[in-house]
Parts: sequence; C-alpha cells; structure tokens
Amino acid sequence: MAPTQQSPLDLAEGDPFGPHNLPYGVFATADEPERRRLGVRLGDHVLDVGAAAEALGSPYATLLARPNLNPLLAAGRTAWHDVRRALTAWVTIPSHRSSIEPLLHPLGDVTLHLPYEVADYVDFYASEHHATNVGRIFRPDGDALTPNWKHLPIGYHGRSGTIVVSGTDVVRPSGQRKAPADPAPVFGPSVKLDIEAEVGFVVGKPSGLGTPVALSDFPEHVFGLSLLNDWSARDIQAWEYVPLGPFLGKSFATSVSAWVTPLEALEAARTDPPVRDFALLPYLDDSAEEDKGGYDIRITVAVNGHVIAEPPFATMYWTAAQQLAQMTVNGASLRTGDLYGSGTVSGPEVHQRGSLLELTWNGRDPLELPEGKRTFLEDGDVVTMTAWAPGPDGTRVGLGEVSGRIVSAA
Amino acid sequence: MAPTQQSPLDLAEGDPFGPHNLPYGVFATADEPERRRLGVRLGDHVLDVGAAAEALGSPYATLLARPNLNPLLAAGRTAWHDVRRALTAWVTIPSHRSSIEPLLHPLGDVTLHLPYEVADYVDFYASEHHATNVGRIFRPDGDALTPNWKHLPIGYHGRSGTIVVSGTDVVRPSGQRKAPADPAPVFGPSVKLDIEAEVGFVVGKPSGLGTPVALSDFPEHVFGLSLLNDWSARDIQAWEYVPLGPFLGKSFATSVSAWVTPLEALEAARTDPPVRDFALLPYLDDSAEEDKGGYDIRITVAVNGHVIAEPPFATMYWTAAQQLAQMTVNGASLRTGDLYGSGTVSGPEVHQRGSLLELTWNGRDPLELPEGKRTFLEDGDVVTMTAWAPGPDGTRVGLGEVSGRIVSAA
Repeated sequence: MAPTQQSPLDLAEGDPFGPHNLPYGVFATADEPERRRLGVRLGDHVLDVGAAAEALGSPYATLLARPNLNPLLAAGRTAWHDVRRALTAWVTIPSHRSSIEPLLHPLGDVTLHLPYEVADYVDFYASEHHATNVGRIFRPDGDALTPNWKHLPIGYHGRSGTIVVSGTDVVRPSGQRKAPADPAPVFGPSVKLDIEAEVGFVVGKPSGLGTPVALSDFPEHVFGLSLLNDWSARDIQAWEYVPLGPFLGKSFATSVSAWVTPLEALEAARTDPPVRDFALLPYLDDSAEEDKGGYDIRITVAVNGHVIAEPPFATMYWTAAQQLAQMTVNGASLRTGDLYGSGTVSGPEVHQRGSLLELTWNGRDPLELPEGKRTFLEDGDVVTMTAWAPGPDGTRVGLGEVSGRIVSAA
Repeated sequence: MAPTQQSPLDLAEGDPFGPHNLPYGVFATADEPERRRLGVRLGDHVLDVGAAAEALGSPYATLLARPNLNPLLAAGRTAWHDVRRALTAWVTIPSHRSSIEPLLHPLGDVTLHLPYEVADYVDFYASEHHATNVGRIFRPDGDALTPNWKHLPIGYHGRSGTIVVSGTDVVRPSGQRKAPADPAPVFGPSVKLDIEAEVGFVVGKPSGLGTPVALSDFPEHVFGLSLLNDWSARDIQAWEYVPLGPFLGKSFATSVSAWVTPLEALEAARTDPPVRDFALLPYLDDSAEEDKGGYDIRITVAVNGHVIAEPPFATMYWTAAQQLAQMTVNGASLRTGDLYGSGTVSGPEVHQRGSLLELTWNGRDPLELPEGKRTFLEDGDVVTMTAWAPGPDGTRVGLGEVSGRIVSAA
C-alpha cells in the first residue's frame, strides 16, 4: 500500500517546488484579505515565512514579516543566502515540523499578489532567433538584424505601473492602427493581440548614479527571476513605433509570475550562452568562464491548455548579466525592485517561437487549436506559461506559472 | 525714500513668485537635513506649509505635514483647489502675518529635494519644429516627419529612477557609438552631450487599468508642471535607437525643477495650440474650445549664464491633454507621481530651438560663447533653464529653474 501523504512537508519525490526551489511570493488569506504576507512556495502550499521566522525566533523576522519582498531584495546577497539557508532548514529539519506545518496554506486557499513593488521596467530584445524572425517579417527586403544587434543588447523602458501578477485579466487594448495601404489610421480594439514569452530579472541591491555595474557583479545585484508575458498589440505597435520605439502597443499590461525564483536555486541551470560571432567590447565580454551567464530554462506556452510553443531560454544570445551591464554602463542607477525582461525567447525551431507573430508568421499560418484557428488572441483565450530548469542532483526547479485571460475591449 | 522691505511677505510688485503663483517643493533646513518638508515658494523664500497648517489649525494639516507631494497629488482636484485657496489666504491676509512670517525660510538657507516620488516617466516628441529639424539632420533625403507624426503624439517610456532635482551634477555618460563610416563601434565618454528643453507634467489622481482618460479629464488628473531637461547623449542614441527607441542615450539623468507649478496658477496662460493640418481621431480631437490645451510658456536656456535659446511652449503641436489621452487610450493606468515630458520645445526661429543638436545643426554651426565655441556640452558647463507664463492681471508666473552642471565621465 502506498504511504498516505501526511503533511505538506512530505512532498512527492521530484516535486519541482521542493525544498531545493523555495520561490518567494506574496499572499493573503480569505479571512484577512488585506493583510499581505511574504511566503515561499513548497509543493502546492505556501509557507508564511514571517510567521515562521517569528515562531522559530529567527533573526530575520523583521525582514520577513513584511507585505512585500522589497526589504529582503534591498538587503543584499549575504542576507539572501542566509535567509534561504534558514528557510531550507525550516522546511527540512524534522524538529521544526510541528512549528512549520500550521503555517503552510494550500495554494488554493490564498490570493497571490505582485511580490514586489516594481521600480523601473526595461525590456530587452536578446534572442537572435526572435529578432531574425521579426526582421524577416517586417523588413523582408532588408537585413533581418539591425547593424547594432550583435554589438549590444538592445532594450527600452516599459511601463512599470501596468505590471500585473499572474491571473490578472488583460483587457484588449484599443488604439490607432494603419495598414500600409490604408489612407489614414483607424481606431479600435487591437486585432493583433499577441504574447511574448520572456524571463524577467528582479534587481535587489541598488547601485549609485554615475557608477556602472560590471558583468561580474550581476549576482550581487540581481536577486532572482520569474516568467514574464509581455503582451503586445502588434497592429498598434507597427504604426506607432517609428522612430521612438514601442509604447502603447506594450504598455497596457505585462504579466509576471507570482513567484520569484532566487538565482541561488538555479546554480545547476547555469550554462554557456551561444558562441559569439565576434569579440565584444570589454564591458560586455563574457568569454571568461566565470562570466558566462546563460540559464537553461525550458518554457512551455499554452493557449487554453493547448501547448503552442516550447521556447528554450538557453539559446538567448545576450545574457541577463550582459543586459545589466548594458543598462548601467552609462551610469544609470539601479533601484530595488527594478525589473528587466529578457526579450521574447525563441529557439531555432518553429515550435520554439515565443510569440504568435512568429508562430503564425504574422497571421499567414494560423495555429490549429481544438477550439479553432488562431492567428492572434481572441477574447476569452487564456495564455499560460510554465517552465522548469535543471536543479541539483537531477531535480527540476519549477518556475511559477504566468497566466492571463483576454477580456473584450472596454 | 523707497520703502524698506520689512517682511518676506512684502514682495516687490510683479514678483513672478508672488501669491498668484505658489509652486510646491520639498525642502530641508541645515539644522534638520534629514527632515524633508513640503513648502511653497514665495519670492525668495519657502513657506513651511505643514507647520503653517498646524499653526493655523487647518484641516489640511495631515495632507501637508508630509515629506513629499504625493499625498496631496493623490487627493484630487477639489483638494488641490481648496489647499491652494487656503495657502493664498495664509500669505495674503494680514491677520495671519505673525503666524506665517516665522515659517518662511530664505531659499539660500535650505536644500531643495525632488518634490515627489516619480512613478512612470514618459517622454513625448510633440514640437513640429523640433521633429522637423531632427528629421532633416538625420534623414536628409527622406521626409522630415514620419507618417504617424501628425496622427498621434509619439512618446516612449524613460527611466524614472534617474530623474534628479535641479542642481544635481550630471556625470557625462559613457557608451557605445559608431559613426556610419566606422568599421566597428567604439566605447567611451559621450562626445555629443546635449540638452532638451521641455515642460514636464505631473499626474496626481490615478486612473484604473483598462480605463482610458478622456481629453476633457486632463485637469482632473494632472496637478501641475515644471521645467525639465532631458539630457541626451546624441552619439550613444544614434547607434542604439533602431529599432526600439532611445535607451542609454537618455537614461543617465533627467533633471526637473524643484518647483511644481499647479495648473490652477496657469489659467491665464492657456492658449490655443497651432491649427491642425487635418482632423484628428475623436479621442485626440481638441477642436472644441474647452478642450484647447496649449500653454503660453516662454522658456530661456542659458549655458554658463549666456542665453542660447528662447523656446516658446505655445508652439507645441500636441498638447499635454492630448498626450494624456494618448498615453491611456490603450487602457494603461495612471499612478500618482507619473511624470511626462512634452518633448523638446523648439519654435520656428533658429534662436527658439531647444537642443544643441538643432542649435548647432549637429555640430556644423558652433555657438559662440564668451568662454569659447560650443557644439555640444563640455565638462564644467552649467545649463540653466528658466521660464515664465502670463498670470492674472498682467502678472507673470515664474516657473522654477532647472539647472545642472556636467562633470567628467567616471
């Protein structure tokens, strides 16, 4: 007879949210919906870490009894490591079991909130396959990549005020669009509403104005990562983006997972980025072994539960460490809560493309879903991204899902 | 014999910072440098409005005894009006004089801070003269304006974490640049460091995600404005900005005045924007008289005390109300503390251009300053922008200056 699972602490072997993972989030319970608390995910439960710290007399109780992650983010790498070590002990050492068990809430019983206050949001454009596909679609007669593409990670600022937690509905945006043949722009709900499968990196420790952050200082400043869906209205974007870049085509919503996975949980997932085509300027040169900043993260994108793509993060040309160095090389400062997106993750294969723009080749090749053809998203569609990365000793580290449902235009 | 000025409340007639103006700022005194307080400027003094509200038993004491403007910004238009009416009474009614006088600090004795916490920062591109000049400089063989320019106010998000208060030194940024003839990009301090003379608008009342803000709701949401200098490294910008827009060429610093002038002080400065070349889509159509959202603001730009330009804000093609409608038409929400820049203000005349890029035609025509020729800024240069607008009864409403000194690259 199989053993009955007695406790949320007795996870199934190989659970991607086991004690080797421990991503952070913010939750509230039904009886105290206004009281936001810091938690870590363990299997299908969330541990109230502020209450646990207090129950166990932890020196981190002040840092953890907070309504969001920002104080922990600001505390820096040594604190991140020490807190993680303490949490691991709490959920694994048998003598703590009686203290910890009552502080575990089933995920189904809690509401998850945005885990941190977002400061600035930057989005990059770091997948060579994505950029090449986009270039071919929009500039079929020119070079697919712009001349700067392999010299620097291209990025731009997005709207941090419209970053929403997974599960938040996305209202279809309205705006101007104009096809090349149209005599004048028209206004209405976007007819090319798209996704972008990305990984978002969360800055913890700030940096000073005027002081660039070196490539090797990436783990001092970046706390962790999560899945990110940079919803995009392609028709609005196409008309507005010359010459100053994307604006309303992106600013209506960006969804992030409710769970931030600390980098420390992803050590086994570190990997070499693709071979560089030529030498980079010194501030971006990651040819030294210790500077190689790729992560092997396997993303799955589903629409209404039907898998449409499996973008491999390991194929990204530019790494998160290079993006951080780029973002600050001009002296721009970092703040706790800064978030930057990797850019759409697309691999070399058709089924590895991280946007409908690429998957359907701008609508030319519709996807066949059980409920019908899709070029871009329809009202009611639910997009869910999940992912995992190799963990220690053959385990998998699950990334929290990011999901959103399209609702009709206002 | 001329009367001796007995009190800071006895301002010279026509003082542009008289009781008809009352811009808000945040200051600290030398003996309590960590204690930030809300103030309004009166002549060359700042009134501690939190202390004044307490001394006079005002119902606004809670709103005003704060370290920044955000709570007042969030309170909405009725509160803005009522507080302003109270302040006006405090500084003009003789019976209040003995209470108010001790709470006035000479500007020379205080440190001014950023008056509000900036949420999102957006920069527009709304001067037809500026956009035309830039187009002619960078695309001499093409149309000066992109096809979308007269259909919508073009904008993009900037970095809110590097918005600094007037008086903050600006470190010359380093970055990649590549002239068209160069075989590869080079790295180093910017050699084309420029200014952009702008007016920045400060959002008070937030709006909900998914709900556009109509043109006519501009005064419900926007609290006031200030001068803004959007420092720009033209060489970094030129290499990086295709295809996703400006990033590091702008993100190293944006300076704003320490004083926010409430819109209510600028009623007499309201003016019609330029005649539209053709009908706009309804959400941008400001042909109704009550929707005309121009402001007659006369800006002066000086380098090291030498006036180099006088950009006229009244010539802007797109108004701040249209920019707000554009920014939210896709459902993007507003937060208290959102800031948006008008874009560089340039008039039709050469001496009305708001950037060195235009004034020197990208370095071709250096300016002659007493200390030598200038194409772009040199280390040690101090750029100061001042402005005034017509006030009631022939008065002038002064806008607080925005100033910054260039220091050499790190």
